[in-house]
Amino acid sequence: MTASRKEIKVGILGATGTVGQRFIELLSTHPYFKIHALGASSRSAGKRYAEVTKWKLATTIPKDVAEMVIQECKPDAPGFAECGVVFSGLDHDVAGEIEVAFRAAELVVFSNAKNYRRDPIVPLMVPLVNPHHLPVVRHQQSLLGLKKGYLVTNANCSTTGLVVPLAALEKAFGPIKTVLVTTLQAISGAGYPGVSSLDILDNVVPHIGGEEEKIEWETAKILGDVLPDSTGYEYHAHTPMTISATTTRVPVIDGHTASVSVQFVRSPAPSVEQVKQALRDFTCEAQTLGVPSAPAQAIVLHEAPDRPQPRLDRDLHNGACVSVGRVRECPVLDIKFICLVDNVRLGAATSSVMNAEIAVEKGYIA
Amino acid sequence: MTASRKEIKVGILGATGTVGQRFIELLSTHPYFKIHALGASSRSAGKRYAEVTKWKLATTIPKDVAEMVIQECKPDAPGFAECGVVFSGLDHDVAGEIEVAFRAAELVVFSNAKNYRRDPIVPLMVPLVNPHHLPVVRHQQSLLGLKKGYLVTNANCSTTGLVVPLAALEKAFGPIKTVLVTTLQAISGAGYPGVSSLDILDNVVPHIGGEEEKIEWETAKILGDVLPDSTGYEYHAHTPMTISATTTRVPVIDGHTASVSVQFVRSPAPSVEQVKQALRDFTCEAQTLGVPSAPAQAIVLHEAPDRPQPRLDRDLHNGACVSVGRVRECPVLDIKFICLVDNVRLGAATSSVMNAEIAVEKGYIA
Amino acid sequence: MTASRKEIKVGILGATGTVGQRFIELLSTHPYFKIHALGASSRSAGKRYAEVTKWKLATTIPKDVAEMVIQECKPDAPGFAECGVVFSGLDHDVAGEIEVAFRAAELVVFSNAKNYRRDPIVPLMVPLVNPHHLPVVRHQQSLLGLKKGYLVTNANCSTTGLVVPLAALEKAFGPIKTVLVTTLQAISGAGYPGVSSLDILDNVVPHIGGEEEKIEWETAKILGDVLPDSTGYEYHAHTPMTISATTTRVPVIDGHTASVSVQFVRSPAPSVEQVKQALRDFTCEAQTLGVPSAPAQAIVLHEAPDRPQPRLDRDLHNGACVSVGRVRECPVLDIKFICLVDNVRLGAATSSVMNAEIAVEKGYIA
Amino acid sequence: MTASRKEIKVGILGATGTVGQRFIELLSTHPYFKIHALGASSRSAGKRYAEVTKWKLATTIPKDVAEMVIQECKPDAPGFAECGVVFSGLDHDVAGEIEVAFRAAELVVFSNAKNYRRDPIVPLMVPLVNPHHLPVVRHQQSLLGLKKGYLVTNANCSTTGLVVPLAALEKAFGPIKTVLVTTLQAISGAGYPGVSSLDILDNVVPHIGGEEEKIEWETAKILGDVLPDSTGYEYHAHTPMTISATTTRVPVIDGHTASVSVQFVRSPAPSVEQVKQALRDFTCEAQTLGVPSAPAQAIVLHEAPDRPQPRLDRDLHNGACVSVGRVRECPVLDIKFICLVDNVRLGAATSSVMNAEIAVEKGYIA
Repeated sequence: MTASRKEIKVGILGATGTVGQRFIELLSTHPYFKIHALGASSRSAGKRYAEVTKWKLATTIPKDVAEMVIQECKPDAPGFAECGVVFSGLDHDVAGEIEVAFRAAELVVFSNAKNYRRDPIVPLMVPLVNPHHLPVVRHQQSLLGLKKGYLVTNANCSTTGLVVPLAALEKAFGPIKTVLVTTLQAISGAGYPGVSSLDILDNVVPHIGGEEEKIEWETAKILGDVLPDSTGYEYHAHTPMTISATTTRVPVIDGHTASVSVQFVRSPAPSVEQVKQALRDFTCEAQTLGVPSAPAQAIVLHEAPDRPQPRLDRDLHNGACVSVGRVRECPVLDIKFICLVDNVRLGAATSSVMNAEIAVEKGYIA
Repeated sequence: MTASRKEIKVGILGATGTVGQRFIELLSTHPYFKIHALGASSRSAGKRYAEVTKWKLATTIPKDVAEMVIQECKPDAPGFAECGVVFSGLDHDVAGEIEVAFRAAELVVFSNAKNYRRDPIVPLMVPLVNPHHLPVVRHQQSLLGLKKGYLVTNANCSTTGLVVPLAALEKAFGPIKTVLVTTLQAISGAGYPGVSSLDILDNVVPHIGGEEEKIEWETAKILGDVLPDSTGYEYHAHTPMTISATTTRVPVIDGHTASVSVQFVRSPAPSVEQVKQALRDFTCEAQTLGVPSAPAQAIVLHEAPDRPQPRLDRDLHNGACVSVGRVRECPVLDIKFICLVDNVRLGAATSSVMNAEIAVEKGYIA
Repeated sequence: MTASRKEIKVGILGATGTVGQRFIELLSTHPYFKIHALGASSRSAGKRYAEVTKWKLATTIPKDVAEMVIQECKPDAPGFAECGVVFSGLDHDVAGEIEVAFRAAELVVFSNAKNYRRDPIVPLMVPLVNPHHLPVVRHQQSLLGLKKGYLVTNANCSTTGLVVPLAALEKAFGPIKTVLVTTLQAISGAGYPGVSSLDILDNVVPHIGGEEEKIEWETAKILGDVLPDSTGYEYHAHTPMTISATTTRVPVIDGHTASVSVQFVRSPAPSVEQVKQALRDFTCEAQTLGVPSAPAQAIVLHEAPDRPQPRLDRDLHNGACVSVGRVRECPVLDIKFICLVDNVRLGAATSSVMNAEIAVEKGYIA
Repeated sequence: MTASRKEIKVGILGATGTVGQRFIELLSTHPYFKIHALGASSRSAGKRYAEVTKWKLATTIPKDVAEMVIQECKPDAPGFAECGVVFSGLDHDVAGEIEVAFRAAELVVFSNAKNYRRDPIVPLMVPLVNPHHLPVVRHQQSLLGLKKGYLVTNANCSTTGLVVPLAALEKAFGPIKTVLVTTLQAISGAGYPGVSSLDILDNVVPHIGGEEEKIEWETAKILGDVLPDSTGYEYHAHTPMTISATTTRVPVIDGHTASVSVQFVRSPAPSVEQVKQALRDFTCEAQTLGVPSAPAQAIVLHEAPDRPQPRLDRDLHNGACVSVGRVRECPVLDIKFICLVDNVRLGAATSSVMNAEIAVEKGYIA
């Protein structure tokens, strides 16, 4: 239960960027996380948040945040020492050094950056899928000689939308053998300024640098197991899961759509009806724990033949769920479907926040 | 050689619609086809073309066509009797009866409508792929007791973009066993008014009614063989080819993109380099015959990692070729790639016109 | 005060259309209006709302509404007799007869349709501007021999965005002499299916049928006075106000933007600073009355040089305010600015609802 | 007559940028200008054009240009010395120094950059409007002690679309007193990467930095006269012309639309019919001279109520004309209309090329 939790101060790194703005939007009304410190580049440090931020959300900057003074992204900058959690929306080109500096200063970091996702002692955690990987942080602390500090990352936005239905299917029907996925990704996935309008208006760009590799190996880590002593990962090694991803960019603002075909290890494969039922029935630990950002439904199953659609469905459950539709037989593999994730919420900031809530609930944050 | 061909009068059915407009645009500068008769609904009949047509192309109505008087779509309406070819851009709801009426009147009909594509005595002909199916029309005439009249259809726009590279691969490497394809289709594929802007701006619609089935069975007919006596089809029956298609609509004006994975019957499969070379080397009969609308290259192979793109590549070779890019290994099947077809040209009117040119060249049009 | 109001049952005509859907979205959480009857075409009548409605909003159909049975748009159809207010989102081609039939049956109708806007005994009411026109309904009742029934319309969506700042300026600085306005209107203003995507992707359509005339005369009625005995209107007749409107359609989903230049009767004209202050200070009767749908601010004045923008600012105050920005001197007239209204909320359903709330508050609804 | 002109070698500065790409596209098929030298930043110098250029046009790089080696933008870099004309598509941040260096080296520079547009000895020349300003270059040479070198600029893209119809109206009806214009400008006007897709998808940005000022003063210079001895300009000083411009960005790829109202000095003003006739009849000196890039019609007058539209009309006459439509009375000023210019062709590279052709024809290029 979260009702009676006492306030936990939080810091935000990369607070002026697009992911940072989402953190602020989410956290400004959070029941117990309280925005206490904002970090950005030295160019912005010392200035009022509203003064230096090109706010790109269709809401206004929360009033108290607007007046906060930005700090440099250093653990000893005013405010961070008091934070129970630090959220990182930093770009990968600076996240590497800053995040480990904060961890070394015994701070707990939940990061949206890609830098440490492959690190065998860092959980790559999708809150609707693998909170049971969290104990790896104890091994992380032990190896690094830390008492309180650790680092947890969330997954790439397109991986997140994929692994939730895959996890639901593996839970119900056992291991999946192969996955073929083609994504249609929103422009917001590239940040700001990100995709030039000349590249995407009236167009599709059938390539997103590094994205296909991320989907392929992140999925294996997330759906894999941790070693019995929580000292690291088994990368879905117990099954011969193979993933083939093609990623494309389309003129959509928010919401990554994916066309997915899967083949199960078990034969015969489950029927379309069984698959639908499993998706409908899927409940995840974030829901059981009752953390504040958990969606009422982790997966929304659509029956209309032309859903999910990013513009109409990305806001369901405040962007914290995954939509699945068009579940049908695949003539080549077993089952195919369309899935949709709000890439700027569950695919980014919402995952970090929910991961931190789970850590609070499980006693990993003092 | 076409240089010295004498003029052949042609009629256009459905001349005021979007496909009809493309026929007019293409034929108004054709070296030997000469627009002679325009057919449309009885509501438009008797009026000047420019008066009743909501012209939707970024060109102007050719001057002489603007002044032509529209006829009803009846074989005995003025003008059609003199036509060596009649092109049909009719909607499927009226194409069924009108096209057979024209054929029964001993007219040669090349149709873009879907009505007779499954008919075992009607060639479903993609000009860059299967002109060798044309002899089936002799069987068609024989069965129907016709001397000159017959009917040939071209394929669905998204099928067309897919079968050209598949044909090139089968030519080089033997039969393909399975194909998994996800399309990202342009709005112009739905005609006018077609897709509501409220449905597609900032959105993806992951469903196009009937389209997936069309891709699946049309491909089998086009890549299949005709019986030794040309009396019908073998639907790719000599191999266990299986196709799984997912079709989506994206906010692109013209140009259907597809993400394709294929598995060959032969093992080991050809390498990425071999596949690229086969695509580069592919030459089709339309090119060998030298018909006027044949593209200089049937397949344009792109090496840039982010191509083909619909806005930048749909105009290559006047929209009469297929672009292929991102050829790479598929971890699940053998090879994957992106292909692109201009759905309103090679995917529609250009195919009909090139099919008719091939028929002229092969002596099927008197 | 509205806190203790008792429930008022309401009906919605044209409930399955796009304006009807907005009425349902707004009213399903209303503090005292309670959706009681849904009217649509005879084709839909007798069926469940969720069964026949192509819901086009990025929310889900409210659960209790989903199960309601649709009625024909007849005053004696079940449910309407008990309604204190009937909201009409009907298309103008049917609104004419249906709305007067409901009024004749002693029902109070608040309509978004254009049919009776010019009627001299029907208030054309923008809730943030002219609630003082409401007494004209007493004259309407008297002329028609009605005791309870009357009809009130709201304005065209683009007019609504314009008259709010004009009213604020006239309130502060006296009559305006001339207005030159060019609008950039969203596609949702045309309903569904409305604008074809082929007409508007990568395009501007510089014409919206009848829209310019509506802006020109509606503004004169709304900013005009009612006669001293409330028996009709003076169409801004006390000043020589002249309006020149050019209306265009742009590829924006929701939110009409306008570029406006005005000239005051008084000379010298107010300064840019005075105009900004007047816009900031503007308070309307809907706010004073404290009706539930009144925005906290009627006009949001933007200081950033590139605001307001439809995508970022249309949601301010739940779409119930008008945004104004770029206030500066006009070298030709006196002052120019950009304004923005959410055409589907304040420009449509929200205005009808707020008008009805004002009528409740002023005792015009029993 | 241009048929027998002998080849003139030309250089292109800023050859890898978006304007430079347009220069290459236009000049690669020019009857007598022959691309001889390509200049770009020192980062690109020494490399093959195709190797370093992110080509953004829907055509392919002309084959011989693809293989050319890029030079630094220095007059003594190989190739420039032999050029009869140097076209500049440089960004304004570097154009200032480079262009005067080329002029100082006795080269003739036609520039699309804004740096020297206000210079009183540099013609600001729209080829369809004021080729009679060209003699000012003799004064420029005399002041700077040059024999062959001089500099001519063309106008801002949105100014260009406006001044052509204004010039036609002034030619027919005498001076214009006031102009009120609101533009809806394409994203390509901002170059590449230019406008972020996050800023413009489903949006309007009602501000383009510096653009309104450019329209206001450039128009006065272009429509003004040169002094009798061609030593400088009279900035439309003979009439009290006042312009008020509001500029907005819309999600259109190419083609700037403008909503324009004008008031004439003369009273009564010409009628709508007279204005239409004057626009239809307008012929410019570029046409009389018969230069290769001159459009068959300088102004295309549209009678359809919903034209011109950027997507459908920007390609008319290869983008070298201005489209005008919706000519009607303005209740506030005299006449209003919609105009459209292809900002990347007549609004940019085509103007520079046509200006140079005029200079050739008039004997200003040896």
